[in-house]
Amino acid sequence: MNEEQLRSLLEDVRSGATGVDAALERVRHMPFEDLGFAKVDHHRALRHGMPEVVFGLGKTADQVVAIAGKLLERSENVLITRTNPAMAERVVRELPEAEYFPMSGAIRFWRNRTITGKGKIAVVCAGTSDIPVAEEAQVTAETMGNEVISIQDVGVAGIHRLLQNRTLLMEARVVICCAGMEGALPSAVGGMVSAPVIAVPTSVGYGASFHGLAALLGMLNSCASNVTVVNIDNGFGAGYVAAIINRL
Amino acid sequence: MNEEQLRSLLEDVRSGATGVDAALERVRHMPFEDLGFAKVDHHRALRHGMPEVVFGLGKTADQVVAIAGKLLERSENVLITRTNPAMAERVVRELPEAEYFPMSGAIRFWRNRTITGKGKIAVVCAGTSDIPVAEEAQVTAETMGNEVISIQDVGVAGIHRLLQNRTLLMEARVVICCAGMEGALPSAVGGMVSAPVIAVPTSVGYGASFHGLAALLGMLNSCASNVTVVNIDNGFGAGYVAAIINRL
Amino acid sequence: MNEEQLRSLLEDVRSGATGVDAALERVRHMPFEDLGFAKVDHHRALRHGMPEVVFGLGKTADQVVAIAGKLLERSENVLITRTNPAMAERVVRELPEAEYFPMSGAIRFWRNRTITGKGKIAVVCAGTSDIPVAEEAQVTAETMGNEVISIQDVGVAGIHRLLQNRTLLMEARVVICCAGMEGALPSAVGGMVSAPVIAVPTSVGYGASFHGLAALLGMLNSCASNVTVVNIDNGFGAGYVAAIINRL
Amino acid sequence: MNEEQLRSLLEDVRSGATGVDAALERVRHMPFEDLGFAKVDHHRALRHGMPEVVFGLGKTADQVVAIAGKLLERSENVLITRTNPAMAERVVRELPEAEYFPMSGAIRFWRNRTITGKGKIAVVCAGTSDIPVAEEAQVTAETMGNEVISIQDVGVAGIHRLLQNRTLLMEARVVICCAGMEGALPSAVGGMVSAPVIAVPTSVGYGASFHGLAALLGMLNSCASNVTVVNIDNGFGAGYVAAIINRL
Amino acid sequence: MNEEQLRSLLEDVRSGATGVDAALERVRHMPFEDLGFAKVDHHRALRHGMPEVVFGLGKTADQVVAIAGKLLERSENVLITRTNPAMAERVVRELPEAEYFPMSGAIRFWRNRTITGKGKIAVVCAGTSDIPVAEEAQVTAETMGNEVISIQDVGVAGIHRLLQNRTLLMEARVVICCAGMEGALPSAVGGMVSAPVIAVPTSVGYGASFHGLAALLGMLNSCASNVTVVNIDNGFGAGYVAAIINRL
Amino acid sequence: MNEEQLRSLLEDVRSGATGVDAALERVRHMPFEDLGFAKVDHHRALRHGMPEVVFGLGKTADQVVAIAGKLLERSENVLITRTNPAMAERVVRELPEAEYFPMSGAIRFWRNRTITGKGKIAVVCAGTSDIPVAEEAQVTAETMGNEVISIQDVGVAGIHRLLQNRTLLMEARVVICCAGMEGALPSAVGGMVSAPVIAVPTSVGYGASFHGLAALLGMLNSCASNVTVVNIDNGFGAGYVAAIINRL
Amino acid sequence: MNEEQLRSLLEDVRSGATGVDAALERVRHMPFEDLGFAKVDHHRALRHGMPEVVFGLGKTADQVVAIAGKLLERSENVLITRTNPAMAERVVRELPEAEYFPMSGAIRFWRNRTITGKGKIAVVCAGTSDIPVAEEAQVTAETMGNEVISIQDVGVAGIHRLLQNRTLLMEARVVICCAGMEGALPSAVGGMVSAPVIAVPTSVGYGASFHGLAALLGMLNSCASNVTVVNIDNGFGAGYVAAIINRL
Amino acid sequence: MNEEQLRSLLEDVRSGATGVDAALERVRHMPFEDLGFAKVDHHRALRHGMPEVVFGLGKTADQVVAIAGKLLERSENVLITRTNPAMAERVVRELPEAEYFPMSGAIRFWRNRTITGKGKIAVVCAGTSDIPVAEEAQVTAETMGNEVISIQDVGVAGIHRLLQNRTLLMEARVVICCAGMEGALPSAVGGMVSAPVIAVPTSVGYGASFHGLAALLGMLNSCASNVTVVNIDNGFGAGYVAAIINRL
Repeated sequence: MNEEQLRSLLEDVRSGATGVDAALERVRHMPFEDLGFAKVDHHRALRHGMPEVVFGLGKTADQVVAIAGKLLERSENVLITRTNPAMAERVVRELPEAEYFPMSGAIRFWRNRTITGKGKIAVVCAGTSDIPVAEEAQVTAETMGNEVISIQDVGVAGIHRLLQNRTLLMEARVVICCAGMEGALPSAVGGMVSAPVIAVPTSVGYGASFHGLAALLGMLNSCASNVTVVNIDNGFGAGYVAAIINRL
Repeated sequence: MNEEQLRSLLEDVRSGATGVDAALERVRHMPFEDLGFAKVDHHRALRHGMPEVVFGLGKTADQVVAIAGKLLERSENVLITRTNPAMAERVVRELPEAEYFPMSGAIRFWRNRTITGKGKIAVVCAGTSDIPVAEEAQVTAETMGNEVISIQDVGVAGIHRLLQNRTLLMEARVVICCAGMEGALPSAVGGMVSAPVIAVPTSVGYGASFHGLAALLGMLNSCASNVTVVNIDNGFGAGYVAAIINRL
Repeated sequence: MNEEQLRSLLEDVRSGATGVDAALERVRHMPFEDLGFAKVDHHRALRHGMPEVVFGLGKTADQVVAIAGKLLERSENVLITRTNPAMAERVVRELPEAEYFPMSGAIRFWRNRTITGKGKIAVVCAGTSDIPVAEEAQVTAETMGNEVISIQDVGVAGIHRLLQNRTLLMEARVVICCAGMEGALPSAVGGMVSAPVIAVPTSVGYGASFHGLAALLGMLNSCASNVTVVNIDNGFGAGYVAAIINRL
Repeated sequence: MNEEQLRSLLEDVRSGATGVDAALERVRHMPFEDLGFAKVDHHRALRHGMPEVVFGLGKTADQVVAIAGKLLERSENVLITRTNPAMAERVVRELPEAEYFPMSGAIRFWRNRTITGKGKIAVVCAGTSDIPVAEEAQVTAETMGNEVISIQDVGVAGIHRLLQNRTLLMEARVVICCAGMEGALPSAVGGMVSAPVIAVPTSVGYGASFHGLAALLGMLNSCASNVTVVNIDNGFGAGYVAAIINRL
Repeated sequence: MNEEQLRSLLEDVRSGATGVDAALERVRHMPFEDLGFAKVDHHRALRHGMPEVVFGLGKTADQVVAIAGKLLERSENVLITRTNPAMAERVVRELPEAEYFPMSGAIRFWRNRTITGKGKIAVVCAGTSDIPVAEEAQVTAETMGNEVISIQDVGVAGIHRLLQNRTLLMEARVVICCAGMEGALPSAVGGMVSAPVIAVPTSVGYGASFHGLAALLGMLNSCASNVTVVNIDNGFGAGYVAAIINRL
Repeated sequence: MNEEQLRSLLEDVRSGATGVDAALERVRHMPFEDLGFAKVDHHRALRHGMPEVVFGLGKTADQVVAIAGKLLERSENVLITRTNPAMAERVVRELPEAEYFPMSGAIRFWRNRTITGKGKIAVVCAGTSDIPVAEEAQVTAETMGNEVISIQDVGVAGIHRLLQNRTLLMEARVVICCAGMEGALPSAVGGMVSAPVIAVPTSVGYGASFHGLAALLGMLNSCASNVTVVNIDNGFGAGYVAAIINRL
Repeated sequence: MNEEQLRSLLEDVRSGATGVDAALERVRHMPFEDLGFAKVDHHRALRHGMPEVVFGLGKTADQVVAIAGKLLERSENVLITRTNPAMAERVVRELPEAEYFPMSGAIRFWRNRTITGKGKIAVVCAGTSDIPVAEEAQVTAETMGNEVISIQDVGVAGIHRLLQNRTLLMEARVVICCAGMEGALPSAVGGMVSAPVIAVPTSVGYGASFHGLAALLGMLNSCASNVTVVNIDNGFGAGYVAAIINRL
Repeated sequence: MNEEQLRSLLEDVRSGATGVDAALERVRHMPFEDLGFAKVDHHRALRHGMPEVVFGLGKTADQVVAIAGKLLERSENVLITRTNPAMAERVVRELPEAEYFPMSGAIRFWRNRTITGKGKIAVVCAGTSDIPVAEEAQVTAETMGNEVISIQDVGVAGIHRLLQNRTLLMEARVVICCAGMEGALPSAVGGMVSAPVIAVPTSVGYGASFHGLAALLGMLNSCASNVTVVNIDNGFGAGYVAAIINRL
């Protein structure tokens, strides 16, 4: 039952066409989600400037092209994450305006580039191997209307490189830190800034990194109080949360 | 070398009392941290309204009383977390104005109660056993100058209880979700609000909860994009991050 | 908004006291859970013959006595699980009709002993150390209105003891299997009966049993297709599910 | 020794052709399994309407074709699970009436479509990536004589989509829930229905999902009491157990 | 149905008192385990010289005294493992002839000291902290009729101490190796002897020993081909298997 | 220093050509391993009837052909384990008398087929997928001079199939049990026989089998006292230990 | 701001061209790392004789060729680790003087072969499968100016082979031990020498080796006090640390 | 056979009292360890200045007093680690010159305080809770003849505190880093110094620190090449290795 139907029902009650008991019964069983939930979703999308995201992993190229095509009809900005090269090639060929990021596999349709974030978001990564995850975070945050500061290759084993970027870091309203191996970067960064730090463990490493577990545990145990953590390699999630914080 | 010493050195250079080479040598080796780092720390504390936190676990009652006593001389608000009953009894007896929270073991000296947070912070917990962790989050957020909405016992297995609190939840600028066992609450809450959600896995459960690991993994894999995670039972960290986000 | 309020609103619409737009607005925002959710819960309890269960672990004796006392006012049967001896002593002293099971720590108030289950539930355990968990399952199933067959000490290393109980097992409509150590019993039982088998890994064992993990993994990998699994030591859960299946 | 041989022996005893001691000796050592065990198996198959299942994983296409061919001579319904495309292509080409389900790799020969289940089985899945596992559960339940309600894409992060399907869910006599990532769906569903819920963790996810471990642990720790769990991606097992419960 | 009943039935058949069909039916359903299974167990006990073992862990002192007392009526040798000091004190006080081993908590009643093992069993341990486990293995093997060579404190980090005992080791027909920490001893011993080596990981260690997991994994991965492994701290199991091998 | 050199030195001492002090010094530093260690190895090989085993995994076909060729010059029986098809094809083509076992990848040169084992070795496996591991065990045991009884597809979920083979099992002097998934077979077999049982967990399974971990833990926690365990999929190790036990 | 700029500034202060306040401001904000940090790095490289290492894993052949080419302009020795064959082929073809080590995938440009280490470094490995990791350690140590003693195939299951190399081992100033499977070698070697031993667990093994975890845990729990550990398969790290110790 | 016996044998050979063959046989079988191994051990102790260490954990106070008393007769310096307060009280009361360190439980007899280390050893710890482990490392290193620089409370979340100690750190010839929680300190320190860094993970933390596992994994994955790792809380091992490196 949508709003129109509810209005129609109430008008029938007013006109006497429907009795109170019958109306009561219909209202009681009406799918409550029709009362605005979907709109909430819709509003949230509009408010965020990024109506929909397509998670490419596990979908076929056909599916991704079809879904993205449909989304592009009603949304200005669309983000596809985790595509593979073949899928990306299809998307870029068939959907105009696609911007492809080969390292992370992200594809962006960025037609509304209004900056809505209130400050800058810094995306920091420890080593060059972490760049794909950082790129996913950056693309997500940008597409959601944020100015992004990118700081790369500032692992804690070369702490002076991090310190050199202190001024840049302190400009940011929200900081995203991507690091694999020992995952120590968010603690160091967290101690340098007073902004919230979103830590992204990456699966970079070998042996006892156990595909990112070492970095994940390290970040969860950070002695810096301003650090929260997302899933291993979840650049998208970090970019998304940073964007909604930066909108506050 | 602090700023005064540096100024004095430069004046000696100007006056010729110190040669360029000697000055160069002294500047080169000066502990750079004297150039303002400590102040940054100090400023941060002032800005946050909560200068210092004492982590009680692993300290003796004597140590905690001494440290807290000293901090109270220079800070209006002091928070002690993870005390045990004997330690708490000592603190309350010896330090006036102590407010003790027996479930979480937190003790608060809350002399400046100015609200500085820009919105409300909701602290939601899944079951009554999660309340100690939620309490630590709430006490932390409050002491840092925030109005807190407390919503308890709204686990996903009774989803209607959560839905009943939808309006309350949507009032919050930041949401903290504490849950043990399967840790599913942040996903459900994350889907209902557009605010950032900070998930706190708790060690509540038995058997295959593995002391909070199940909840932790669940939260890290949340399908809601606005969820970030802190360490198991880390109510303090969640309250802290929520507070710095709410100040933005 | 409850049903009375909704009826009143609709009558106001009919009488013209409230306009359609105003009514629409109020309906749209009414807390949908008032439309019957709580009743569903109430009905379920009545239908199951066991209105409430108190999980004793982590509560104080005072809390348990208070909660159970209140529940006993409106429900015939009440079950308290995971009490410790001191808590149990309090409950038994203060609440008449309490039946205490020291091995599992369960306490039962069993005032309505109608059998509502359609068949028998067999509770099988591998070794004598598994009996506490089996007892919790049995007490739960009984209190929910079921006749329980108890078969003890039939581990797979003495397969003939299990085979001797084949006739008993085949009488059961649902089978609960509790086993620690290697957790092999559900596979053997699952191959002998065509009824659904609910496997309960127990934390019985040492060393590489890892507090029930070995048994849990074994049961999840059972080559018998009629086996499902609950949490380690979760006798209550097994008894509960067996009871709702036996009611079908 | 089969029944004929035993009868013959007893007749020899009656006629005096065999002495009591000799007969006693032979009976004592006779392979007891000849006394009806195999028949039990046979009866069970007939009673279930699905005599045999072929687990395709790890077999060659030749083996699967041969086994399935033989089974089809004596059974009306045969189910092959976990085939790969090449194997499926062979089976479909060589064995008429094969119905192939590419997402799950299941192949079904469904010649007897009598509905023997007493109610409906709901197969619910959290996201589109969980559909292959849900499909395996559905195909299994259907082939075993059940009507299946399929509810897709109702993850807890969009709880209203789940609530929209409440009526459908409450129609089911048994519910199967397939979910990867945080595996929270069974808790939410378990709280909405009073039917038994069989939870299937899927390996959908990345990073800290650890190939389904996060979902598995979440489900084992469900705070809904009517939930039991099967192995990761074990749609077949869930469908099988649901079918035997629905036959009760 | 026991042998007497079967004989009686067959005699009834011979006499015509029971028809073939009726007899057939009774034989078909007779509990097959009555045909000698229990005797097998009894024979095995007699053959092994150690009729029963009581696992003390998790039992009360009362239970252990009662069980052991009953066993001593029919068996010459009885072994109780994993007692605690209070339990041991009770057993020693109430049951004459008890021999108590405080390090391992084992108690032995060793009334028949016939050596039935065909060779010697060596029990080797890496460090002094492993002696409790080694003692349990030795007491078990001795009570089962074996001569035991005890070799202590020969960890691989002092390989010369192990080499000094080479002659002793080579005298053994079966070798038991107890080691905690890195668990390397079985590999070194396995390379020095051609006898079968039973490795017992112990929970000795701290930190990354994870309560014996490190030693367990090390032993399972031994590059010596003559090594098999039992559970962490399972001295009893090692002694038992060594004894049955030494009887071959 | 080999034996000839030592003899020569002693003769020089006797003749006075070398002084006692000088001789003492040389003996003290002589590499002790020259005093017969290598011979010990050689003797062991001769005594076992299987001088050398080549572990194919991780070697090139060239290496395997070269090593095996050299071994065949001095040993009658050679076993190559874990070859892949391409490597096997090379070995079979270039080395006459090679016997290839495609399921396990084992290749055997079995020129001396004398039976030296004192009894039979039973190799039991739970399911058809465990056959490759069982085959490796059987080939190893046979090549080491043993008669092997092969019992397949007797998983505990069809316990009657195992019981049908009870007589066969009880003929064996040593039993090897290969099982994946829940790994329950060794417990059931261990309870049926008094012979030592060597359990081989296999990596057969999916999901929560974690590549054989579930079976491994199950076997380590077996409640049957006569069970020891080797590494996951280590059919060779089981066959080797069974052979050296059967030689006792 | 580098040293020249700072000198220039101080001279401007002395000359009065810059005021004290302005100078103070510039010094306060000067990137402190310019005060010698980079030089520290540069000096360290020169001092170590190996200015830069390229970690090939995860880079493209183009990237590796470009980076190595640039490094070769300013450094005499360059080491590339973890290349794959295709990448190696490119590097060898395009960059003269490349020395390729196919087992480990290392490539070395070794133009300055001065020995700077004060003693010898022994690189010991347990089995032939560990050689690739040992080779990476050896190539690293050599390229950093050390003489390396290579001792192969001395696993603890053949302890005499290790003992035969005692003299060689005792010559080394630092020992590197590479071992997979049970990882016992460092304990045995650690007990034989008084030099520091750097243990490298390798991922050699199968089943319960869990990709090197068993060896890693074993080494961390070594009962030899002179053992430290690096990551699984981290031959480079071991060679690097050995080299800096050998330079002391 | 000790040296005297060997000399006597050789003299018998020279005198003709023993034939060459008989002597050859005796030498061949002589326990080689008598040829000086024990002396090697003795020499090593003398060379290190610390003859023996007593690991107190798991020993009784009586045992520790007895062992330490005996060692003090022949060694100047004795170190007892991991005592508990009661044990320490006994040792201090009964053995003069005992120096007790309550935080780590170490007890030292330090009669020879000669500095034999060639440089300084820095012992750095991240937080105050790590001090017990750092203390054990420091006491060990000191007792082995080293000057120790102690740097405390320099966690990476306050990187400026670490940088303030840069000069001190760079003075050290070997650095020990103790850190719990995320264990990031060794990476930061490793990047600042060119000395070898021995990382000690501590069990400080809660929740996802998993008793030091997070710190251990972090350190094993350190991106600083000069870091090696010892077991969790193994301050003794770190001090020991640092001491033998500092002696080079």
